[in-house]
Amino acid sequence: MPQATGEKRWFIPDAYIPEHSAGQLTSHESVCVLNTASDDALLQFTIYFEDREPIEDILVVVPARRTRHIRTSSLAKDGKSIPPGVPYAIEVRSDIKVIVQYSRLDATQAENALMSVMAFPIH
Amino acid sequence: MPQATGEKRWFIPDAYIPEHSAGQLTSHESVCVLNTASDDALLQFTIYFEDREPIEDILVVVPARRTRHIRTSSLAKDGKSIPPGVPYAIEVRSDIKVIVQYSRLDATQAENALMSVMAFPIH
Amino acid sequence: MPQATGEKRWFIPDAYIPEHSAGQLTSHESVCVLNTASDDALLQFTIYFEDREPIEDILVVVPARRTRHIRTSSLAKDGKSIPPGVPYAIEVRSDIKVIVQYSRLDATQAENALMSVMAFPIH
Amino acid sequence: MPQATGEKRWFIPDAYIPEHSAGQLTSHESVCVLNTASDDALLQFTIYFEDREPIEDILVVVPARRTRHIRTSSLAKDGKSIPPGVPYAIEVRSDIKVIVQYSRLDATQAENALMSVMAFPIH
Repeated sequence: MPQATGEKRWFIPDAYIPEHSAGQLTSHESVCVLNTASDDALLQFTIYFEDREPIEDILVVVPARRTRHIRTSSLAKDGKSIPPGVPYAIEVRSDIKVIVQYSRLDATQAENALMSVMAFPIH
Repeated sequence: MPQATGEKRWFIPDAYIPEHSAGQLTSHESVCVLNTASDDALLQFTIYFEDREPIEDILVVVPARRTRHIRTSSLAKDGKSIPPGVPYAIEVRSDIKVIVQYSRLDATQAENALMSVMAFPIH
Repeated sequence: MPQATGEKRWFIPDAYIPEHSAGQLTSHESVCVLNTASDDALLQFTIYFEDREPIEDILVVVPARRTRHIRTSSLAKDGKSIPPGVPYAIEVRSDIKVIVQYSRLDATQAENALMSVMAFPIH
Repeated sequence: MPQATGEKRWFIPDAYIPEHSAGQLTSHESVCVLNTASDDALLQFTIYFEDREPIEDILVVVPARRTRHIRTSSLAKDGKSIPPGVPYAIEVRSDIKVIVQYSRLDATQAENALMSVMAFPIH
């Protein structure tokens, strides 16, 4: 039976939703999660800011044996979402082991810029 | 005698084959594998999706003391390959230790965007 | 009570402040730090060069339960700051565990280029 | 006295010297090494290819308490250097612990693309 692989806590210190888009693509960030297990994974996001209290307990499900590329602009809790143009950081907790990567497409100018990192795991 | 180095299982949660290309270069992804051993490495790829069953058991050989930069568009099994424009994730298993890096060139616009990560190893 | 997470020493070998900017954005680097603890973190930066002595003991505070995205051009000690156009490297020490990521936006040309890495932690 | 930090063996599977340059900057790769110790570090590079024998024993010194951002086009042994336009991989061995990051600037088009990864360390 397929096993859970990876870690249960992951961190991304450099998150940022660009304010503008030009050209064919839209600026966005994705938190990309892989769940190799035969059970669904329940994720709990915490969003940290420079100048205000964290947003806690945003819940997302990643089904068994699936990946989900989660747009950060879709994360919301009690009507609070992540404002564009503000530096922030992301913590992901999962009830089972998963693997987490973070990528950003910046289309502020007509031509695109891309960056990606494996999130930092805590054992 | 040269030893195998690295790990036997590696993961890349954020994979994506861009649908369009402009300018001089073609959008593509590469899974770059280094085999430092004096034996060939036999790789087994699993491709995970957001909304359908994984494609399993795609086999690739990396010869002894060689690197291979494998285009993801070349991966296929029983006539099934990875569709462009669809978010997916990659697992690489190897019979001996290897080192795995993932890079994407996005040439959707005339000017290029690049991203690269070391794949996430499981010990 | 929220715990400190991560490591106390982090390294970034490839740092560089681009000399020029074009287009809408300004070339810059950020050292992005996440402090998950209920105590403030006191960071101590060391800047290494290719051809001169390091700049030591630049101090920065990251408040409890906050992130800070620190522009490297803001780092200074006794009137010495990091010159643009010069290859250098960064060491970050913290009195409590934190998580550190490094990103660079190069706007030398009108269109932007982005790169990002998780800093290398020492346990 | 300043201690050596990091690891003695590092790997970069995805290396590539772009063949063309346009715009203000030149396409290049850098292997960026930080030596925090009070002794010089002696590096030994091995270059792996897809279709030919490795180039071994290219030697580079990184002085005590310094960084060096080494252009891969400068690496040579007995008149053999790394050809542009060819996929390859890099192994770095050091006699003392160092930290290694790899970055590529692709200026094939007038606007630039950047990528960077921490090299993969073997303990």
